[in-house]
Amino acid sequence: MKAIGAIDVGGTKIAVGAVAEDGTLLGSSRRPTFTDRGFAAAMRDAAEMLRELTARLGIELLGVGVACPGPLDPFTGILGDVGTLPGWEGGDIVSELESAFHVPVIVENDADAAALAEAHWGAGQHSRRFVYVTISTGVGAGIVLSGDLYRGVDGAHPEIGHHIVDASGPRCYCGARGCWEALASGLAMAEWMRQQIPAENGWSAARICELARAGDEAARRAVEREAHYIGLGLANLITIFAPDMIAIGGGVMKSADLFLPRVRELLREIVTQVPLEKARLTAPALGDDSGLVGAALSWLQRSPVSYRGVETPHHRSEHVR
Amino acid sequence: MKAIGAIDVGGTKIAVGAVAEDGTLLGSSRRPTFTDRGFAAAMRDAAEMLRELTARLGIELLGVGVACPGPLDPFTGILGDVGTLPGWEGGDIVSELESAFHVPVIVENDADAAALAEAHWGAGQHSRRFVYVTISTGVGAGIVLSGDLYRGVDGAHPEIGHHIVDASGPRCYCGARGCWEALASGLAMAEWMRQQIPAENGWSAARICELARAGDEAARRAVEREAHYIGLGLANLITIFAPDMIAIGGGVMKSADLFLPRVRELLREIVTQVPLEKARLTAPALGDDSGLVGAALSWLQRSPVSYRGVETPHHRSEHVR
Repeated sequence: MKAIGAIDVGGTKIAVGAVAEDGTLLGSSRRPTFTDRGFAAAMRDAAEMLRELTARLGIELLGVGVACPGPLDPFTGILGDVGTLPGWEGGDIVSELESAFHVPVIVENDADAAALAEAHWGAGQHSRRFVYVTISTGVGAGIVLSGDLYRGVDGAHPEIGHHIVDASGPRCYCGARGCWEALASGLAMAEWMRQQIPAENGWSAARICELARAGDEAARRAVEREAHYIGLGLANLITIFAPDMIAIGGGVMKSADLFLPRVRELLREIVTQVPLEKARLTAPALGDDSGLVGAALSWLQRSPVSYRGVETPHHRSEHVR
Repeated sequence: MKAIGAIDVGGTKIAVGAVAEDGTLLGSSRRPTFTDRGFAAAMRDAAEMLRELTARLGIELLGVGVACPGPLDPFTGILGDVGTLPGWEGGDIVSELESAFHVPVIVENDADAAALAEAHWGAGQHSRRFVYVTISTGVGAGIVLSGDLYRGVDGAHPEIGHHIVDASGPRCYCGARGCWEALASGLAMAEWMRQQIPAENGWSAARICELARAGDEAARRAVEREAHYIGLGLANLITIFAPDMIAIGGGVMKSADLFLPRVRELLREIVTQVPLEKARLTAPALGDDSGLVGAALSWLQRSPVSYRGVETPHHRSEHVR
């Protein structure tokens, strides 16, 4: 059986999968990312995992799609200075994996891969102006217009998580003050809690949410603050794109019920200039697999070789370049 | 000679023009908008001006394109509650002008019309991801991707001027605090100055810029603040769209030399996640005529009748609806 190999590289885990042409995830496995062992070792790990998986499933790989945090060049597959992958800058994903598998390799920013997967096979299937947002350790987003990923100049992934929502906010590593990620990410939530209760350590968004459910007052305020900043960023995306659908996922949104009532209330207060009622706010449909499925979909859309093995040499250089 | 009639409706003036198929403005005239006399009277004024102009130039109108501040529905031509046109809500531009001229009428948000004109015949001719910004009484913007205007759900104009850049900022009529318009518009600049020097009245961006050039300290601080907020909004547009060109115009930018050095410096400090060096910041090329020329271009792109008078009935309902 033929399928597309998929690799989802994250700061904490690497997942691999085999994906059919219709988006079915035929199988997957994951393990921790040992970022300190470096880029090449991680690529060898990923290749080994993918080889084991395809051997187990009896799958012949047509190609490999890789989802990875940015900044990266999705056309060359060369990594920039990725905050969660220290020391990996300059890593050449395409070369490493093409020499391991001898099939075409396509790389996509992970938020874009997930956005694409949700737009084609998930929550955004009937959307023409689809916004995908992931709130986890960081904040990422992807924009899919009429089925096509929106790409910036030279194929750049727009870094929507770093747009400024409160210029008086905390400084981010990106250089700006009060960008969305610095205010609404899981890390930002934990950092705010640490400042409130300096005596305690090891705060995480998950633990804060748990405490908030148990009635803890500081945790409830942290949740309220988080909802406020999620709402401000979403308000901006609605005002700027006037989308018909926004899917909002990521680790922090596993507690969506704690945030969304306040988020919706805030949106009704402050989004008045575009048709807010047309912007459906929903959960992603593909869960943690969206990165893997999206990586395979990027391969299907962009590979020089079609799913059935026919060369389509002009397909790779996208019209947006 | 055949041409397209163009009407640019603003809160302070109405301009009319005749535009050839290649974008040449064959002639124009303008007069104040008497907003208090109401919508129908203004449409009669505009029709009379356009009739005089076409008679004088010996032009046969093929159609009329209208640029008007939003909110409005660009497909029905029905006005929403426009801040600068009080009492005009519900006005039906298409019906009024089609019964006056008996030719097809097309309506466009004024920032979108100007963006389209600049993208096709002005500063953005070689841009694939073009952002047009106008900083005047308010703040408006239009996005043109590969020559096509970006439209939101149901054809809505994205209200980029109302995206939030400093959530601790002043309340805007839109309901949000610290949206770009509330901080960086000409009105915001004048309002800040009024707060600094309550004894004086009649502040305008033009007067503040003049005083700043003469070395006045408060005016210089107002200019610095304005540059800061122009920069924050532009930083967000660059981070969100990763454009290859931004044209920034409008009345306040007639003093662009006072603002742009600080704007560029700020962008270098805070835009680090997308290729800033690829986003050329430039002045619009069409000046005050961009609204008229853009209104005519919208007509050319969307009218059911082509420039040469051939019916193209399926053209009007745009694919983005």
